Amino acid sequence: MALITLTTDFGLKDHFVGAVKGAIYSELPEANIVDITHEITPFNIAETAYILKNAYKSFPKGTIHIVGVDSELSSQNKHIALLLDEHYFICPDNGIISMIASEINPSKIVEINIHNHIESSFPVLDVFVKVASFIARGGKLDVVGKEISTFKKMVEIQPKVNQEKTIIVGGVIYIDNYGNVISNISKKMFVEIGKDRPFKVTARRYTFDKIHNQYNEIVNFESSDIRQFDGKKLALFNSANYLEIAIYRSNLKTVGGASTLLGLDYRDRITIEFTNPSTPDFTTI
Amino acid sequence: MALITLTTDFGLKDHFVGAVKGAIYSELPEANIVDITHEITPFNIAETAYILKNAYKSFPKGTIHIVGVDSELSSQNKHIALLLDEHYFICPDNGIISMIASEINPSKIVEINIHNHIESSFPVLDVFVKVASFIARGGKLDVVGKEISTFKKMVEIQPKVNQEKTIIVGGVIYIDNYGNVISNISKKMFVEIGKDRPFKVTARRYTFDKIHNQYNEIVNFESSDIRQFDGKKLALFNSANYLEIAIYRSNLKTVGGASTLLGLDYRDRITIEFTNPSTPDFTTI
Amino acid sequence: MALITLTTDFGLKDHFVGAVKGAIYSELPEANIVDITHEITPFNIAETAYILKNAYKSFPKGTIHIVGVDSELSSQNKHIALLLDEHYFICPDNGIISMIASEINPSKIVEINIHNHIESSFPVLDVFVKVASFIARGGKLDVVGKEISTFKKMVEIQPKVNQEKTIIVGGVIYIDNYGNVISNISKKMFVEIGKDRPFKVTARRYTFDKIHNQYNEIVNFESSDIRQFDGKKLALFNSANYLEIAIYRSNLKTVGGASTLLGLDYRDRITIEFTNPSTPDFTTI
Repeated sequence: MALITLTTDFGLKDHFVGAVKGAIYSELPEANIVDITHEITPFNIAETAYILKNAYKSFPKGTIHIVGVDSELSSQNKHIALLLDEHYFICPDNGIISMIASEINPSKIVEINIHNHIESSFPVLDVFVKVASFIARGGKLDVVGKEISTFKKMVEIQPKVNQEKTIIVGGVIYIDNYGNVISNISKKMFVEIGKDRPFKVTARRYTFDKIHNQYNEIVNFESSDIRQFDGKKLALFNSANYLEIAIYRSNLKTVGGASTLLGLDYRDRITIEFTNPSTPDFTTI
Repeated sequence: MALITLTTDFGLKDHFVGAVKGAIYSELPEANIVDITHEITPFNIAETAYILKNAYKSFPKGTIHIVGVDSELSSQNKHIALLLDEHYFICPDNGIISMIASEINPSKIVEINIHNHIESSFPVLDVFVKVASFIARGGKLDVVGKEISTFKKMVEIQPKVNQEKTIIVGGVIYIDNYGNVISNISKKMFVEIGKDRPFKVTARRYTFDKIHNQYNEIVNFESSDIRQFDGKKLALFNSANYLEIAIYRSNLKTVGGASTLLGLDYRDRITIEFTNPSTPDFTTI
Repeated sequence: MALITLTTDFGLKDHFVGAVKGAIYSELPEANIVDITHEITPFNIAETAYILKNAYKSFPKGTIHIVGVDSELSSQNKHIALLLDEHYFICPDNGIISMIASEINPSKIVEINIHNHIESSFPVLDVFVKVASFIARGGKLDVVGKEISTFKKMVEIQPKVNQEKTIIVGGVIYIDNYGNVISNISKKMFVEIGKDRPFKVTARRYTFDKIHNQYNEIVNFESSDIRQFDGKKLALFNSANYLEIAIYRSNLKTVGGASTLLGLDYRDRITIEFTNPSTPDFTTI
């Protein structure tokens, strides 16, 4: 049974999502269609990449991922299908693959050419569904299009490290449902650069000298009133292994989250400064 | 495996959608349930019709469509089940069918009478699920209710054409997730009335002398900065084949869409004026 | 085919829901996953309980319900799995079960201990999916964890009755998609205490002397203009059998609903005062 996921900026009200699902079931009555999200900010490729990168790996190998964001065909925005990390992706060649696959190379990419004569303002319905159905039935990428060796590169701003390796300068790449603010600094980078040195995380005028692994590590459960910890800010490596600035038990709709309470927005700077162990007048932990 | 779609104004937070799906799976463990939308504006029949009309055709013949909008039973709002265009619809007789089926007649309609004794404030759960399950198991419409020959007519305001066939006056019937403004003027009508004459589309104080087939037809991809085209307004026939006023790469949450930027709202007037070819002082294209 | 439901505060934009579904399909390719809701107000247990309580009963016996609200593991927030009313629940021991199961006792509860060594900020993905998959494959609760005999009690404020049994004082526990205001006063309680006496429902400065069973019972369908009833307030026992204050054909986004028009909010008081039949100067119906 084919597993097909959808990641789009269609929203959940219009007929777009329903029409695409109907078309898939018309082609593949046994398909299993999973919504990753349809709430991407219209045309936002960075957001699409962050969400899809953190969702696709949970799916079984062989899953087919359709990306419907900024997918109108043009001379500068080809349609591609590819095999990456043993998952299939059908998407526009608008840079999204380079943001998903920064560390893995696609093992095969083709430029979709089954639609040479389709003029469409709804290519997910008119083209991507057909390609997905073909692959789901066991069709080869070579038949879907002409193999290409390169794809459009668009990289999210990467964190920078100074020459002395004492400072990592990263940025906010995503704000989640709780208002938690996610940076592009990975745990891996932190460990490699930091080498167990004491450090200070700075986001605007807020600093943190500890990075947690669970939100509730800031809570003293022996305390008589554990509710006093609600609303406290913390830094942690989130489940996607990125440095995140969070508010404990936040709620964007009422008290606010890290984004609103600390005034942090997409692309804002987040830095980690490491203490040189040879100059011990700066210990933080 | 039965394919059942849901189109409701229940929203996605309350227990309504979950309860309905649970009830369907209790009756039909192998059912395949697809959400068309649950985000209909409460009680809005025109919106329901627009969305369902443009989604249902993608589904395979024999699909069962449940409509849960304004579905409380009353002497003026019967429950009906029908076969239309080889699809089944289970819905209130509140005019929605006439708006979906303006060009096709249902081949059979019955007034549901299996619930003569059910007093319910949640008829989708208590009645529609039972009818859908019965049909999915191969049950006949005749058993579901008494055949009727007519249904409530409620037609969306139709576009008007003047006697000289020089002007089409339509209206806005829907605003989509991108803020694009969709009129009730179909491509078919435009072609039949226009007969290739030059024309001018007017929406408020904005005019357009071309109707595109893809959004990015307004972009000059040879340009050094193709981003300059973002935010430009255009008229196009959308994927549903209706005249749409759009903003290229719009975003309602940030820069705005056609609805907010051009000040166009539901029911606003959109006109197409054709130049009489015998008076060539008005050529536009 | 295992039926697994999800009730979370993850929202529909982030990668969380997609990741959880992918992980389930990786374990159980044939699983049937149903979203009850992902729109719970972050960390709101009362809301979770209200929604899940009213949804789970529609599902077939044996369904597995995963609850991802406030689920981070701590010394005060264990992970539990239980069998209740022949349904499986996998959730944090944060009081939610006591609010769902106020009238039924779980037949078996275990404290999940398969994750003794998992430190996770995303326990639904890392723990609950594994437990659900194990149960779906026929695994026993005893293997999932150690049987426990008690669970955290947290009861929603219960309605109170005075000694003379003339007054029920309840409160608002939920506001739905239409702005309808739902109290904690059940039809059962009303019938048992009221014993057919006349009564008056009071919510802020509004009173009602009738409780309906359908919204449109307030409409006179003989009237020439049935639209005049739109916007009228009413009290009814809703489909979940709770006393609800509603506005007929309300719309929170335009004219408003009971919550906004009558100024009723979560936890506000709603009372029913019964007339003592021996003092008949107060008849209402």
